[in-house]
Amino acid sequence: MFSLLEITRKLLKGDFTGLLGIVKTNKEIHPAEVAKMLSGVPYKTSLKGFRMLPTESQLKVFPYLDILLQIKIIRVITKDRASFILNKLSSDDRMTFYTAVKGLERSHFLDLLEPKNRDAVLDLLGYPENTVARLINTEFATITTEKTIAQAIEHLRRNHKDNETANVIYVVDQEGKLIDDVPIRKLVLNEPDKKVADLLDGFCVTLHMRDTKEDAVVKFKEYDRVVLPVTNEENILMGVLTVDDVLDVAEQKDTRDIQKFGGVEGLDYPYVKTSFFSLVKKRATWLIILFVGEMLTATAMGYFDAEIAKAVVLALFVPLIISSGGNSGSQAATLIIRAMSLKELTLKDWWFVMRREILSGLTLGFILGVIGFVRITLWQELHFFDYGQHWFLLAVTIFFSLIGIVMWGTLSGSMIPILLKRVNLDPAASSAPLVATLVDVTGLVIYFTIAAFILKGTLL
Amino acid sequence: MFSLLEITRKLLKGDFTGLLGIVKTNKEIHPAEVAKMLSGVPYKTSLKGFRMLPTESQLKVFPYLDILLQIKIIRVITKDRASFILNKLSSDDRMTFYTAVKGLERSHFLDLLEPKNRDAVLDLLGYPENTVARLINTEFATITTEKTIAQAIEHLRRNHKDNETANVIYVVDQEGKLIDDVPIRKLVLNEPDKKVADLLDGFCVTLHMRDTKEDAVVKFKEYDRVVLPVTNEENILMGVLTVDDVLDVAEQKDTRDIQKFGGVEGLDYPYVKTSFFSLVKKRATWLIILFVGEMLTATAMGYFDAEIAKAVVLALFVPLIISSGGNSGSQAATLIIRAMSLKELTLKDWWFVMRREILSGLTLGFILGVIGFVRITLWQELHFFDYGQHWFLLAVTIFFSLIGIVMWGTLSGSMIPILLKRVNLDPAASSAPLVATLVDVTGLVIYFTIAAFILKGTLL
Repeated sequence: MFSLLEITRKLLKGDFTGLLGIVKTNKEIHPAEVAKMLSGVPYKTSLKGFRMLPTESQLKVFPYLDILLQIKIIRVITKDRASFILNKLSSDDRMTFYTAVKGLERSHFLDLLEPKNRDAVLDLLGYPENTVARLINTEFATITTEKTIAQAIEHLRRNHKDNETANVIYVVDQEGKLIDDVPIRKLVLNEPDKKVADLLDGFCVTLHMRDTKEDAVVKFKEYDRVVLPVTNEENILMGVLTVDDVLDVAEQKDTRDIQKFGGVEGLDYPYVKTSFFSLVKKRATWLIILFVGEMLTATAMGYFDAEIAKAVVLALFVPLIISSGGNSGSQAATLIIRAMSLKELTLKDWWFVMRREILSGLTLGFILGVIGFVRITLWQELHFFDYGQHWFLLAVTIFFSLIGIVMWGTLSGSMIPILLKRVNLDPAASSAPLVATLVDVTGLVIYFTIAAFILKGTLL
Repeated sequence: MFSLLEITRKLLKGDFTGLLGIVKTNKEIHPAEVAKMLSGVPYKTSLKGFRMLPTESQLKVFPYLDILLQIKIIRVITKDRASFILNKLSSDDRMTFYTAVKGLERSHFLDLLEPKNRDAVLDLLGYPENTVARLINTEFATITTEKTIAQAIEHLRRNHKDNETANVIYVVDQEGKLIDDVPIRKLVLNEPDKKVADLLDGFCVTLHMRDTKEDAVVKFKEYDRVVLPVTNEENILMGVLTVDDVLDVAEQKDTRDIQKFGGVEGLDYPYVKTSFFSLVKKRATWLIILFVGEMLTATAMGYFDAEIAKAVVLALFVPLIISSGGNSGSQAATLIIRAMSLKELTLKDWWFVMRREILSGLTLGFILGVIGFVRITLWQELHFFDYGQHWFLLAVTIFFSLIGIVMWGTLSGSMIPILLKRVNLDPAASSAPLVATLVDVTGLVIYFTIAAFILKGTLL
């Protein structure tokens, strides 16, 4: 038995014997484990470690490495070795690699491919980055309907490699148009003299080359499938897509949604691998936009500076009041953005959402209003703080302001994502900070207007 | 050809002929399509529609219905029919159903099962709700090593139903302990007289009954697998798990994370299916906690009311200052929470994160500080607003306050999730509103302290 931790420790000390030992002598290690060890050490060490692996192991481990490490490796190893590895990759792993490298470096690396592979990669790179075409595996097994099961099995044995795409066999006509997919288990579970035609179930769920990755996730879930065929406009079978390749897609999409909602431009790489400069840049953009927007609060408060001077006590509650609007807006935005992202809500539901959120906002505002009212009354009566002779009117002001602002916050938070979607922008861009900023400015106006109305002739 | 939209429209009018027509005459419809139509109409209509389906279709469509609809159906159909359906479900779909019903209703529905199925469900219900055990399919194909491929195929043909778990055959010893898994394709791609023992690759990735669903997602991704065997403590094979069942898990986990981050208790059901009362309750809890916390801002400002009375102009910038802290905190919290959720960051990285975030905070604070300084100078010089004779000192106060508060916000936002994790709480609970609230209170203290220092003897 070997210990991954032990080997990683050795690696960190520059000792590669442990790594080479298990790779050479122990066949019971999964390439993913080796990849994990190489990812757990500094780049220089992992590069050195990878170069020391026997060729066979390099080929197996490479696809499991993270894409940044893959690129660094291809940059530093010899041209011949790089060409060998890139040509031997499965077609989907190869596409992942070429999708990640850009510009001049991409064409440089394309020169390393055999003509057949290069043409295939170039074809698929012609599809937009977010499409299924970029993820498909183009090695798949096909058969025609008139064959018997015995013939099909013989055909497979002669023509197909043992890889994960060989779990399903695709039934096509003479032109390569897809008719149906048949799991290999059906070849085994049925009598050998049956025809392939007898195994068809009549419906075939397919993806299209231009479907987005998100469409694919939805389809996998809807039909409880783990692999789906991908066709072009003429229904010609172009490749297959396995669900593990979109497992990351759903996660990456959620990551972008979450980061946007937190008011950060989506990161291209994991936090730990993003450079300090790019991290600050991604944050500064939104922070500056929000800051400039929030400057309107200073302007708004400037309009009311006479009121504040007369009743300083009003200023004390400004943060409490506006943050309540921001918080309730952030709650509403979260719920709506996520529901839209999961396609539980669509644009046409806006009226349902609006009625519901106005009612929620009123209820929540009333609850906070009561708490606010009680707080002022208690502090006054228990002599914690003196809000002056008109404390009761102040408490009433706070009560009504909270109802108004929480309702306004809830309504803005729920409607902004819907409006953004309506004009074809990403609803997730209506981040918590954005909603809070918008609500802050209007919240101040609501607060001081209600105050002016209630306190006129007394405090103001 | 039929149109789903057309049939749904008919359904909405109470006309079930379209639905029954396609189910009876057209075998080219996937049960998932029927389920989708039934989910798109009001409950009453979908219940009625389901009851009118032929038994065969009911069995096929049921697993694709959403769980709430499944429960409603079982409640209203006859006991015999309910018992028939529940017993015919695949074991994983049955577990999903029983996991969703609680309390008395669960035991009531358990009585509908045959003893063998009931015992199996009760066994698995003994495992915690978040474990793999709750998702496994207990129907799987096993074989022993000494058999030939031809024998294995014969064995499968006799003993196993044609369902998705039959894509992989599990090699076990006499006691049922798992040795390896062999994809069925290997039986087809190899010569029939080879032994099963010759097909083993020496490593077998397994899940354990008590692994969490999140563990399973990680393993599926790490090893690029779509189905994994699940064993108990004695390495006895208990069931298999397919990746489509955890596709939802990753999504649900992300949904909970996102909702928590937005300051809402995670919803149990989709937004549109959550009742108004439960929606308000889930939001009110956090909103009240945050409101009570935010009351400290009124207290903090109370301490400085003499300063505000002397320099009303200070109050004008309160919302701008504190929201900048909240926004930068929300950004930092988002990045750290997501990185921890994806296991890119662990607790031991706190020092790396802290150094990085202090530096980011200083940089971002400096940028905003400069903008704030320029804003005041411009407004003053262009006579947009008169900040009084000491406007320059005010601008300096704003400059330094922004640096201090943005740094403080960034630091809090990044450290609170790590601290929560340290005390075994969910980092996602450090929501944008929570971070903003904490930063608001301390931000005010920072602002007025810097103001007191710089403006002493002039404005104050």
